[in-house]
Amino acid sequence: MELTGNWFAESVSPDLAVLLRLRAVLFSGATAYQKVEVLDSEVFGRSLVLDGKTQSTEVDEFIYHESLVHPAMLFHPDPKSVFIGGGGEGGTLREVLAHRSVESATMIDLDREVVELCRAHLPNHHRGSFDDPRVTLRHEDARAFLQSGGDGFDVIVLDLVDPLEEGTAYLLYTDEFYRIAKARLNPGGVLVTQSGPAGLPNHRECFTTIFHTLSEVFTHAAAAQVHVPAFQTLWGFTIASDAPLQHQPEPGLDAAIAGRISKPLRHYDGGNPPGNVRPAKVPA
Amino acid sequence: MELTGNWFAESVSPDLAVLLRLRAVLFSGATAYQKVEVLDSEVFGRSLVLDGKTQSTEVDEFIYHESLVHPAMLFHPDPKSVFIGGGGEGGTLREVLAHRSVESATMIDLDREVVELCRAHLPNHHRGSFDDPRVTLRHEDARAFLQSGGDGFDVIVLDLVDPLEEGTAYLLYTDEFYRIAKARLNPGGVLVTQSGPAGLPNHRECFTTIFHTLSEVFTHAAAAQVHVPAFQTLWGFTIASDAPLQHQPEPGLDAAIAGRISKPLRHYDGGNPPGNVRPAKVPA
Amino acid sequence: MELTGNWFAESVSPDLAVLLRLRAVLFSGATAYQKVEVLDSEVFGRSLVLDGKTQSTEVDEFIYHESLVHPAMLFHPDPKSVFIGGGGEGGTLREVLAHRSVESATMIDLDREVVELCRAHLPNHHRGSFDDPRVTLRHEDARAFLQSGGDGFDVIVLDLVDPLEEGTAYLLYTDEFYRIAKARLNPGGVLVTQSGPAGLPNHRECFTTIFHTLSEVFTHAAAAQVHVPAFQTLWGFTIASDAPLQHQPEPGLDAAIAGRISKPLRHYDGGNPPGNVRPAKVPA
Amino acid sequence: MELTGNWFAESVSPDLAVLLRLRAVLFSGATAYQKVEVLDSEVFGRSLVLDGKTQSTEVDEFIYHESLVHPAMLFHPDPKSVFIGGGGEGGTLREVLAHRSVESATMIDLDREVVELCRAHLPNHHRGSFDDPRVTLRHEDARAFLQSGGDGFDVIVLDLVDPLEEGTAYLLYTDEFYRIAKARLNPGGVLVTQSGPAGLPNHRECFTTIFHTLSEVFTHAAAAQVHVPAFQTLWGFTIASDAPLQHQPEPGLDAAIAGRISKPLRHYDGGNPPGNVRPAKVPA
Repeated sequence: MELTGNWFAESVSPDLAVLLRLRAVLFSGATAYQKVEVLDSEVFGRSLVLDGKTQSTEVDEFIYHESLVHPAMLFHPDPKSVFIGGGGEGGTLREVLAHRSVESATMIDLDREVVELCRAHLPNHHRGSFDDPRVTLRHEDARAFLQSGGDGFDVIVLDLVDPLEEGTAYLLYTDEFYRIAKARLNPGGVLVTQSGPAGLPNHRECFTTIFHTLSEVFTHAAAAQVHVPAFQTLWGFTIASDAPLQHQPEPGLDAAIAGRISKPLRHYDGGNPPGNVRPAKVPA
Repeated sequence: MELTGNWFAESVSPDLAVLLRLRAVLFSGATAYQKVEVLDSEVFGRSLVLDGKTQSTEVDEFIYHESLVHPAMLFHPDPKSVFIGGGGEGGTLREVLAHRSVESATMIDLDREVVELCRAHLPNHHRGSFDDPRVTLRHEDARAFLQSGGDGFDVIVLDLVDPLEEGTAYLLYTDEFYRIAKARLNPGGVLVTQSGPAGLPNHRECFTTIFHTLSEVFTHAAAAQVHVPAFQTLWGFTIASDAPLQHQPEPGLDAAIAGRISKPLRHYDGGNPPGNVRPAKVPA
Repeated sequence: MELTGNWFAESVSPDLAVLLRLRAVLFSGATAYQKVEVLDSEVFGRSLVLDGKTQSTEVDEFIYHESLVHPAMLFHPDPKSVFIGGGGEGGTLREVLAHRSVESATMIDLDREVVELCRAHLPNHHRGSFDDPRVTLRHEDARAFLQSGGDGFDVIVLDLVDPLEEGTAYLLYTDEFYRIAKARLNPGGVLVTQSGPAGLPNHRECFTTIFHTLSEVFTHAAAAQVHVPAFQTLWGFTIASDAPLQHQPEPGLDAAIAGRISKPLRHYDGGNPPGNVRPAKVPA
Repeated sequence: MELTGNWFAESVSPDLAVLLRLRAVLFSGATAYQKVEVLDSEVFGRSLVLDGKTQSTEVDEFIYHESLVHPAMLFHPDPKSVFIGGGGEGGTLREVLAHRSVESATMIDLDREVVELCRAHLPNHHRGSFDDPRVTLRHEDARAFLQSGGDGFDVIVLDLVDPLEEGTAYLLYTDEFYRIAKARLNPGGVLVTQSGPAGLPNHRECFTTIFHTLSEVFTHAAAAQVHVPAFQTLWGFTIASDAPLQHQPEPGLDAAIAGRISKPLRHYDGGNPPGNVRPAKVPA
């Protein structure tokens, strides 16, 4: 491959980086909260980059967003009200809204400018989900919002940037925050959070900590991992609930997907969860 | 991360490359067949690089070698004689020899110099397996060897470099070669081959072709994929046999591992195969 | 320095490349003749890149354009009519027009789109020179234009992309083309051409060939070299004439600059030419 | 150019880096004082890298070492005793010893291990100069050595790593150190120091400061700059003396070189100094 041209460089772990050839830089700037870039590449299409980290790309965001949303939603028998923390691209919202049972989705993303940039530049991510009448979109602190009380949620989906010490989301991965979130869950409610890199060399960055923190706050916790090509590594998710997280066997799960989700899925199906959602595989 | 210092650059797919910070270059040269490097890095320890492509690394080779060897070996009820094509590092040989049933392992690696470099520089890969009295090691063309007739094998493990047009192994991924190999399998015999990258952006490079070729030559074929960190992507394997490839349920598989393999495994266990060895997931 | 972020990579010579951190990609596309990018960086400001090679940057283009234009113009006692081949950014035109003696400047740049992109994106390069009433700008083949006959020129300035075999300008560095150009020079006329990299490792790519070709076509030839930071190497220029190329001593040259050029120069002065314009230093 | 393979990355200035394809890493380790690498590349041959910065390369070290040593030596009418601070590769020593007048050369390099690595790995740098009977080599602090008194020197050559705050040589670029060095100069003595990058974007890193510091400590100071390809930029030198630094005209200088230096030079000659050693060109 040719070295010449324009490249986006991103670190995967200490001493390891990825170079992605760029087709265009659609936006490069900063909001009140973070640096933002919207990039375009032959390999991954359009991507959102926050503080130098790829959040999702047009080509493979379905793997990430389906893995984040559907296992958690399907653990709940009938999710009507859903809370989304973060998720500025609108892909998480899109997957949540595909559940026929959903009557309201409340999305809180602190950074209004990021959401506006995504609406303008990433139409294949959100696919109009922000215009769905079931959606309430607010730009404020998710913690304060959850703490302030109000109606409960059946599912809480946390689609936040990784918990870097200097980042905007650091306080949304703590035991304290999870207790606040849990207090807003309806009985039988389920919480899921993206949980950072989950490969052999990097799963200890935050994945195992998040799993263990959630295991202490909730009665049940399950970990999942999936390969997201744009992240160059396995990616982790953690699902937690005080209700049991019981896997359906394969045919039952495929039937549940067909019955409860109003569109075909591209990644998640009955063949995936036994391999992907296995708490026993989270290293101590 | 700091850009300065020494780096190894490797392409993952067109327009995408990985930079790995180097601790040392232990060997850099060429044999009669290929360019060879033995590198050392903080992230992956010692690694073998052939014609610019990472073959395996000290830190994560167990994921690759266990995934290549054990599912195939365990599909066979009692593998006594095993053929290995390629596998110069000795890691495949090491895993094969861990099966208590194995009475002979015949390893054919064309490139004597590569094997000698691995014996000298990669002790944590081979761990002395070349000295096992059950081993016959020869340096010649695997195809000619298999074609020349002789005793049959219960399992054939192909651990070859990817089928690049200009590479040494191109002719060892063809329908013609697979028929030659099959002719040397004992009744009920199993063949497995490493099958190249298996992620969303690159599984069509060779993985799907290999699966479909083997599906035509054998009655049964199964595909597996696993994340190998040093390859920066999912990696594919294909298992083929004229005997049915029947999965044991989880407890049975863990028991089989404990009963048949003389050492603890680090990656492969009863939790893995349902998610990893699923022919249905190979795209058309 | 941090590796993360967006970078422009350019090769300097075989096995050597430069990475420049990008602030923005202002344009990326292709015209009928070549790939074009307008980049922006902290280090060099806005730059024009044609077929992957940096042509000039906002921060240091004055070094290149003054070195290309002024020594050649000052070798001529009274240049009134000037021909410019290439020079799409308008920087060469700007320096030519700064000579009080110039009555007409005819600029032929094949690629109309590049010139329009430069007019739009590189105002600090051309600084309005395209609007000067002395300028005739045409978009056609420079060779055909010169060959077609018409008024002669006192100075011909060739500011073309390097003579790559697949490039647009390859035929404008030949002995045949130089004879065509020479035929359009008025008596005592001077020709100057940018001549590619002139550092120790790369001066043989084209610099020495151009010097020797011009030495055969003209009675006198002189070579100059100057360090252009954005090119990461010394850069070469060759001046040729049938009239003697006689250096003025330092005070005389400073006086000539002050008398003949209508603006202060930023790089070229009496201290530079003895070190920079020395035919003896071109290797055989 | 191909991205794949092994590369050495070095920063030139903020946001700008160079990638050099490596042929081999001959040594990589650390002494008591600094990180040391001996690299080998097709472009530059063998090179010494200290704390990540290239010090000199086999292919172009003659440009650096001739430019450091000869102008300063030739400003002195008859240099018999020379002091060298740093210069572990032995190239500076080699050039000093080429002066027929030299009776003794005292080289103080703090880091014995670096000198030993250079003697072992860089024979084309030192070319046996360490074995010359006129040489005294010591490994101690240059400042303490000069301060401790003893015989005076006709020329002091400082070939130290750049004055980085965390580096070993920071205190050897101060006004205080220059006064100590000056006290050891014989009447009419000359001091020269390498002075860091001297290109448009980076000459203010240390070059201008060194020139101004030396201008205050000595009656006369002269700056030189030369393009060293391996440094990817112009490089600065500063010469200082209480005796006038008077340039000889070109034929006289060529004669002086022929008369006083016992070998042919490859870079420095009568054509160079007027362009290279010009105090007026150091920006304020």
